[in-house]
Amino acid sequence: MSWLAGYGPEDEEENDNLGVDWVLKYEFDDLDQAEAIEKYRTLLHDLNEAGLRVQVRHGHGASLLVCIRVPRDHLGNMIHKSRIKDWLFGITHSLPAGDQNAMADAETPAEEYRSVYHAVTWQKELGGAGITPGFGKWENITASFPLHDREACSKLLRQWSRKTMLTTKDLDTIRALFGEKVAFYYAFIHCYSLFLVVPAALGIVGWLYLGPYSITYGALLCIWCIVFVEYWKIREADLSLRWGVKGVGRLKVNRIQYKWDKEVKDRITGQTKRVFPGWKQFLRQLLLVPFASVAAVALGSLIVVTFASEVFISEVYAGPFKEYLEFLPTVLFSLSLPAITSMLTSIAIRLTDYENYRTQDQYDLAQTQKTFVMNFITSFLPTILTAYVYVPFGKSIVPHLDILRRTGLKPELLSTQKEFEVDTNRFQQEVIYLSMTAQVLSFGEEIILPYIKHALWQKWRDYRDRQAGFHRKRSASKAADLLLMDPPDEASFMTRLRGEADAEEYKVEEDILEMCVQFGYLALFGVAWPLVPLGFLVNNWLELRGDFFKLTLECQRPPPIRADSIGPCLLGLDFLAWLGTLSTAAIVHVYRGPISEVRLSSLLLTMFITEQLYLAARFTANAALEKIFSGTIRREEDRRYVVRKSFLMASMSRNGSPGSGDSPTRVRPRVRFNEKVNVYSSNTEAMPSPGGSPIPSIEQPQDDLLRGDREAEFWNGSSSDMTSAGAKLIRALCSSKAVGVKSSKEA
Amino acid sequence: MSWLAGYGPEDEEENDNLGVDWVLKYEFDDLDQAEAIEKYRTLLHDLNEAGLRVQVRHGHGASLLVCIRVPRDHLGNMIHKSRIKDWLFGITHSLPAGDQNAMADAETPAEEYRSVYHAVTWQKELGGAGITPGFGKWENITASFPLHDREACSKLLRQWSRKTMLTTKDLDTIRALFGEKVAFYYAFIHCYSLFLVVPAALGIVGWLYLGPYSITYGALLCIWCIVFVEYWKIREADLSLRWGVKGVGRLKVNRIQYKWDKEVKDRITGQTKRVFPGWKQFLRQLLLVPFASVAAVALGSLIVVTFASEVFISEVYAGPFKEYLEFLPTVLFSLSLPAITSMLTSIAIRLTDYENYRTQDQYDLAQTQKTFVMNFITSFLPTILTAYVYVPFGKSIVPHLDILRRTGLKPELLSTQKEFEVDTNRFQQEVIYLSMTAQVLSFGEEIILPYIKHALWQKWRDYRDRQAGFHRKRSASKAADLLLMDPPDEASFMTRLRGEADAEEYKVEEDILEMCVQFGYLALFGVAWPLVPLGFLVNNWLELRGDFFKLTLECQRPPPIRADSIGPCLLGLDFLAWLGTLSTAAIVHVYRGPISEVRLSSLLLTMFITEQLYLAARFTANAALEKIFSGTIRREEDRRYVVRKSFLMASMSRNGSPGSGDSPTRVRPRVRFNEKVNVYSSNTEAMPSPGGSPIPSIEQPQDDLLRGDREAEFWNGSSSDMTSAGAKLIRALCSSKAVGVKSSKEA
Repeated sequence: MSWLAGYGPEDEEENDNLGVDWVLKYEFDDLDQAEAIEKYRTLLHDLNEAGLRVQVRHGHGASLLVCIRVPRDHLGNMIHKSRIKDWLFGITHSLPAGDQNAMADAETPAEEYRSVYHAVTWQKELGGAGITPGFGKWENITASFPLHDREACSKLLRQWSRKTMLTTKDLDTIRALFGEKVAFYYAFIHCYSLFLVVPAALGIVGWLYLGPYSITYGALLCIWCIVFVEYWKIREADLSLRWGVKGVGRLKVNRIQYKWDKEVKDRITGQTKRVFPGWKQFLRQLLLVPFASVAAVALGSLIVVTFASEVFISEVYAGPFKEYLEFLPTVLFSLSLPAITSMLTSIAIRLTDYENYRTQDQYDLAQTQKTFVMNFITSFLPTILTAYVYVPFGKSIVPHLDILRRTGLKPELLSTQKEFEVDTNRFQQEVIYLSMTAQVLSFGEEIILPYIKHALWQKWRDYRDRQAGFHRKRSASKAADLLLMDPPDEASFMTRLRGEADAEEYKVEEDILEMCVQFGYLALFGVAWPLVPLGFLVNNWLELRGDFFKLTLECQRPPPIRADSIGPCLLGLDFLAWLGTLSTAAIVHVYRGPISEVRLSSLLLTMFITEQLYLAARFTANAALEKIFSGTIRREEDRRYVVRKSFLMASMSRNGSPGSGDSPTRVRPRVRFNEKVNVYSSNTEAMPSPGGSPIPSIEQPQDDLLRGDREAEFWNGSSSDMTSAGAKLIRALCSSKAVGVKSSKEA
Repeated sequence: MSWLAGYGPEDEEENDNLGVDWVLKYEFDDLDQAEAIEKYRTLLHDLNEAGLRVQVRHGHGASLLVCIRVPRDHLGNMIHKSRIKDWLFGITHSLPAGDQNAMADAETPAEEYRSVYHAVTWQKELGGAGITPGFGKWENITASFPLHDREACSKLLRQWSRKTMLTTKDLDTIRALFGEKVAFYYAFIHCYSLFLVVPAALGIVGWLYLGPYSITYGALLCIWCIVFVEYWKIREADLSLRWGVKGVGRLKVNRIQYKWDKEVKDRITGQTKRVFPGWKQFLRQLLLVPFASVAAVALGSLIVVTFASEVFISEVYAGPFKEYLEFLPTVLFSLSLPAITSMLTSIAIRLTDYENYRTQDQYDLAQTQKTFVMNFITSFLPTILTAYVYVPFGKSIVPHLDILRRTGLKPELLSTQKEFEVDTNRFQQEVIYLSMTAQVLSFGEEIILPYIKHALWQKWRDYRDRQAGFHRKRSASKAADLLLMDPPDEASFMTRLRGEADAEEYKVEEDILEMCVQFGYLALFGVAWPLVPLGFLVNNWLELRGDFFKLTLECQRPPPIRADSIGPCLLGLDFLAWLGTLSTAAIVHVYRGPISEVRLSSLLLTMFITEQLYLAARFTANAALEKIFSGTIRREEDRRYVVRKSFLMASMSRNGSPGSGDSPTRVRPRVRFNEKVNVYSSNTEAMPSPGGSPIPSIEQPQDDLLRGDREAEFWNGSSSDMTSAGAKLIRALCSSKAVGVKSSKEA
């Protein structure tokens, strides 16, 4: 499993990416040889057309790995252009110096890889190779990713395992490695965990002195939720300014799937715009409502049935195998849930497609929204049922469950005691379970399980490959044999490459969603057991590192996409804070005294008043925080001011003919052939704008040289013979496959 | 009353301002002669120091009118500088061409007068004369204003009286004449009135078929309120972009009264900033809460007492003079209200001073907020009492009112019938009164009454002045006499000047507040009588013109201040929409059926559900409108984009050294001596930024020349002999005053 070697001693050779910028995985399992070769040819042709260098190697099974390298001057120019674009769209404030053909060097690896990403995926008219994995004629491209920077990642993880909390510097580093979208997740979980300290402390006090369902603790918890959400909004804005991505959504390119009603020539800008009217889109978005209801019904009924039968078995049934049968409903539930969810997801996807968003971002947002709705139902409904249906009304409902008796089943199967007693602690038990066991389980499910799975799968495949190799020896052509053997100095690299090619894509939305759900548990049910936040706090310490571990070792490196927010989950947080306030009030009201004495009117009054208090609190929190943190926001305006000022000074000095807006510090050396940009020094702070960058630090020259040699070796060979080489590989693989199959038949 | 002559035939001489940019009124009634002259000298000295030309004339009574003119090159430079400043603070996107001493000509009169305003009021270090009327050593400066542009105003008013609704062009014109702050009020009332058409139509239908307290109508009304508020927010943002004032609050200068905790050298900008921490200010702002409660108690108790005694007299009392006594409470109320209000206002002012805001804007906002609270109580509490206390609980409360019986008063004074009946229509009657009579009354009170008052006052003073003149003839020095007589060709101008000097200041906040209150009536009580919106619609048609009439003929021209919103009233609207929804629900619930049958729990349920619906509706409205009108907002981004693009092109053409961001169209002619800027062509639409301006249109040259002559006459005489002239005038006035007094004693 040498693809996990990132954590061994830092072996240069081990961790060197040999200057591979991007990797495409081309699978041709389902194609016959000729077709496979044909498709491969077009792929290579398009890549060459876009001026990209390629090297091809064979992957696991019937697949090729196409390593892509963007020539440095080309890359530098693309970076420069994208900066110009940023400036045009008002994302950055200083116009980068230089003309059409100027070259800039990347401030961060993320920026560099973003340009590479564009070079590979953008449409031809935008200057890319137009390769869209899994879509249209590229459906055989099953993976498209940059390689991980093992060194930096392991370094980071080792640091984090030592210290208790991250700093903004660490966030900057994440941003430098994986781009803003990922960085925002870490910023969020970090900020959230820090905030959790307060309720955790409160919780301990509450647990010792107040006990569950305390009004004081509930009130404080609600206020905390509101304050946190409002604070995060400000923090987010602050970060998006710090990272210079505010309003970055504007300049994103159209999706290929985007259908426009008409092309209008913009009166102001003069460019033709592909317009799809907003009201139309909004009308389509309204379909979210029926979708939500369908999801609610489908999942809801499933949950209700499970719940009912579970209650029935545990409370009413008294026949044989009771202890086993009790688990039956849950098992069935867990088995049927994926089916329903995937069904709903497919609907959701079709809906989102129909809503027809211009950019990929908007599309993802809309999709996440729908996922959020589903997650919301599946995660919260069971507990809500327990809290608001089972415990209060169980006494009157459960007796109706024993249809069996009516259906004339042997009564000895049914619990003898006529009078059914609701177990009032059940709700609290569930909450405890959610905040403790569930967290641990999900952690294992999310990080450890895949790890083991992957490891085993790896072993099995290695074994199979060895088999194939063995059979090959007995059989076919020496040539193919030679082809399929990695040269020794590449071997380790290739294994890592193949490993990453088989790894899963990283979906940051899922992680964010997970945190939102956790926040939801706290807001909705936290009052039932004061130690909930403490549990979450501990969990998050692990979660943060676990997620990073997953990201770096179990997933492909995500393309460094820019974003200026955690997206629709922000709305979710708002919603949860609101619902949480109401729910807390209700729970406290219902569970404080004996439930039988609760009167509806008084409950309503409580909730009505609570809601007013919620609105007031939110308004106050918002106003207060904005006032208090206005400084952090104003800082950006000051920065802008400075840039303009210097610009003005410059222009004044050139008496009357203003010049470029950049301070002299921003004249930078060109990117050298595979120099390593130090990810630890993306000091956006000191710079007036993301335009500026540190002078890249180059490590020991001879080592640099050495790497240079190895790379030279790797990249020798022009694209033309790559085409033939690829073709050869395909043939070899097909044959060996056939052989392998035959031989395994023989065996 | 020739100061009202704006509406006679357009007489050039009549309406010509003789190139007077600004007028200061200096009253020395309370000073002795020497002191008066001394203060006058310092005033003139400061004005001269700031490089302003002055002419002095005597005003009504013991006052001087100092006419100020900013030399054209100085003005042009100030305008240029303020544009540079706008660009520095990111308000506009293109850097105006030209160096330190460049001169720009004003796009609109408002812009021109704004620079004049700055020249007069800004502190010396900022390049102004530092004259702050009524504050510090300038407490004798009782008025500071530019002169109205009679022609443009009368033209506008005549146009409006002909057409039913304004266009955005008209708003641009208002903006061009009076600046954005005023323009926003007209934009608001215009937008509001247009929206009113919908509920007015609904109301007629409702009135014919549904009757009062209809659920349908109520629901529609609430939705309308929400949609309107959300729409206005967008409209506001749109206008603030159209007028290029978005975020203009940033660049406002400090108030003199502003106390800062410490001066910090800003790490980024390098300028020293005078900081007053936000949290401190917020804590101080929290004093709004006790203030609100005090106001509520003070006004509330007053209202309750009035209300109770009124009810008592009308319902219980049956003694003599009943018909007169009935009005007694209301009369007492109206008499005592001003006292209390002024008391509260003084508290409010002290509070706002204490809150210590940096800019005048923020200060005004905070003040308006408090006024809003008071207005809210005084305007809504009585009706709320009727709706929610008198009618529902009257039956049980009113009987307790006849303490008299218990105090053993002759029973024959009390109404005989024991059983007291609540008049359930009283609420509706009040609403009808509010939407009809009250509107008319307030209109008269606001516009017609002052007009008459002013006219009479004018007559009386003219009479008195004639007396004084007559006495003077008999008595004192020919010199003074000569001095106090206006030269014939100035006479008409001087009368107008004196008229405007005596007119009141225009407070746009009050007008906005009035509209908010009206909106509040509609939102809170509209459901009680479907014709309310119709009444308001009619009223507003008149109100709009009436306010403009007031602004142009009864008030001084306000300094053209910039703003990017209608201010805190926006918050008020939000609040009213929310409260309105709840109130509507409650009213409908209570008043539909017989009141005795209303149950609290069901009422609570209704309101609770309504509130959820409100939140949902608001969210939806917000999302929908933002989607639908995103275009109008994006247009500004496009404009910015174009500016940058052209900038880039320019810089590219100068191969690689970027140049100034202005398109060639922006090279403009300098301001000629008193050329008239055509206020009708401030087409911000076509321009990429407020930078651009129309080529000013100059009317008949000989006329221009003529005016030139008259101005030359007016402005001849250097500042030095102005000092002496002023001194002479003061002496003359003092003497004539003395004489006048003496003579009137004689008579």
